[in-house]
Amino acid sequence: MLTDRKEISVRFSEVDSMKIVWHGNYLKYFEDGRESFGLRYNLGYLEVYRHNVMIPIVKVNCDFKKPLVYGDELFVETKYIPTEAAKIVFEYVVSRKKDGEIMATGSSTQVFLTPEGELLLNSPAFYTGWK
Amino acid sequence: MLTDRKEISVRFSEVDSMKIVWHGNYLKYFEDGRESFGLRYNLGYLEVYRHNVMIPIVKVNCDFKKPLVYGDELFVETKYIPTEAAKIVFEYVVSRKKDGEIMATGSSTQVFLTPEGELLLNSPAFYTGWK
Amino acid sequence: MLTDRKEISVRFSEVDSMKIVWHGNYLKYFEDGRESFGLRYNLGYLEVYRHNVMIPIVKVNCDFKKPLVYGDELFVETKYIPTEAAKIVFEYVVSRKKDGEIMATGSSTQVFLTPEGELLLNSPAFYTGWK
Amino acid sequence: MLTDRKEISVRFSEVDSMKIVWHGNYLKYFEDGRESFGLRYNLGYLEVYRHNVMIPIVKVNCDFKKPLVYGDELFVETKYIPTEAAKIVFEYVVSRKKDGEIMATGSSTQVFLTPEGELLLNSPAFYTGWK
Repeated sequence: MLTDRKEISVRFSEVDSMKIVWHGNYLKYFEDGRESFGLRYNLGYLEVYRHNVMIPIVKVNCDFKKPLVYGDELFVETKYIPTEAAKIVFEYVVSRKKDGEIMATGSSTQVFLTPEGELLLNSPAFYTGWK
Repeated sequence: MLTDRKEISVRFSEVDSMKIVWHGNYLKYFEDGRESFGLRYNLGYLEVYRHNVMIPIVKVNCDFKKPLVYGDELFVETKYIPTEAAKIVFEYVVSRKKDGEIMATGSSTQVFLTPEGELLLNSPAFYTGWK
Repeated sequence: MLTDRKEISVRFSEVDSMKIVWHGNYLKYFEDGRESFGLRYNLGYLEVYRHNVMIPIVKVNCDFKKPLVYGDELFVETKYIPTEAAKIVFEYVVSRKKDGEIMATGSSTQVFLTPEGELLLNSPAFYTGWK
Repeated sequence: MLTDRKEISVRFSEVDSMKIVWHGNYLKYFEDGRESFGLRYNLGYLEVYRHNVMIPIVKVNCDFKKPLVYGDELFVETKYIPTEAAKIVFEYVVSRKKDGEIMATGSSTQVFLTPEGELLLNSPAFYTGWK
């Protein structure tokens, strides 16, 4: 099972008026995790662009368990979920560094597009090779 | 069925290097829709705070159908989904103003917390009354 | 004197843990004002792109007078400041809608670049014509 | 001269449709620098809150020299500028890690407020002591 663990610090600007991380910012943490995974395993945006393919997110979800606050440090664990379809699926676990508490979980699905925005129904060669 | 429709213009800063709205920004559009709903039906953050209750998001998901680009205007349709549990559930439809095309759909779930962060297992009185 | 006035509502996600609009978000308001000006007077990003020119910000400043809070509605007044140099200069005044109170002022400077990122030392023809 | 150097990686969501870091995000980098400084020298937000004082930004400016792009790593150097007034002034230099190139410079000014939002005309005791 391919996984990556990325460490992140909560930024002041990420906290809302309830003094907790604004929920939309977890999608940034997921993206940080995904990109860290991509750097480690050669599947980052820049790498994929080089093959003339775009991989937009088509589906994302997040379950918020406990609130992160300013000053917290966190880990995003990004797990690659193999699938037959022409898709890239990741699962994420966000945990608090100081005690390992799980703060949020989620997943994302990406598809393959040509630079003109056409959907690829079969995985491009570079990705099949990568798998 | 209680619904609200909010009009939004895509900001330049919301578009990413693929020249489409960065996917995380849809959660802002959902929030704009939710707050517009709240203003219309007295269920906004400020209204709820007045009753000494917080309503953090505990679950959110989004399906991205077509990309919004800079210059687009959009509608967020926010629909209140009644539920027995001590939760607030909304569904969202993001459509492009110029042709009515559906760009994204999603939903969110909120729970009730005391200011100290304790979960309320039963809906607070003001919400039961509101329903 | 060319000016534009754009109305904006403060978003929940724009407020920080001090319950005021996070200071960096004023640059979004300035940008909204600048783009509204551009739409009115044919000097928006999309219009300029059409002439194969980029106009990145090279200088920005902001003075914060009073804090905006969630629920506030505001106006951004964007004023075009003519200059001899190959630059575009705007001044901004952010005021609170309900009482006209001035909340912030600022300015920005943009230059002209080729798509390859080279600085144009003279204003491009379309801009000289526009002036 | 008190200074701090903070390392930051450009996030995908920070890049705009010109494929460069959106200019407003530099204020996040400055804030990251300021908070890193604060952690090192006991002048961070959380530390200051503990003394029942708020230190909002009242002035900020930024000069953009060269564009940061996705994949770049950068340093924010934050320099404390002593002043007689009841203010906190910082200067920032953002440089690219790989070649030391200076990408942006800027400064910020903060004042002292009571929790009720009243301006303190004299520096609070904890800050005089800190200096």
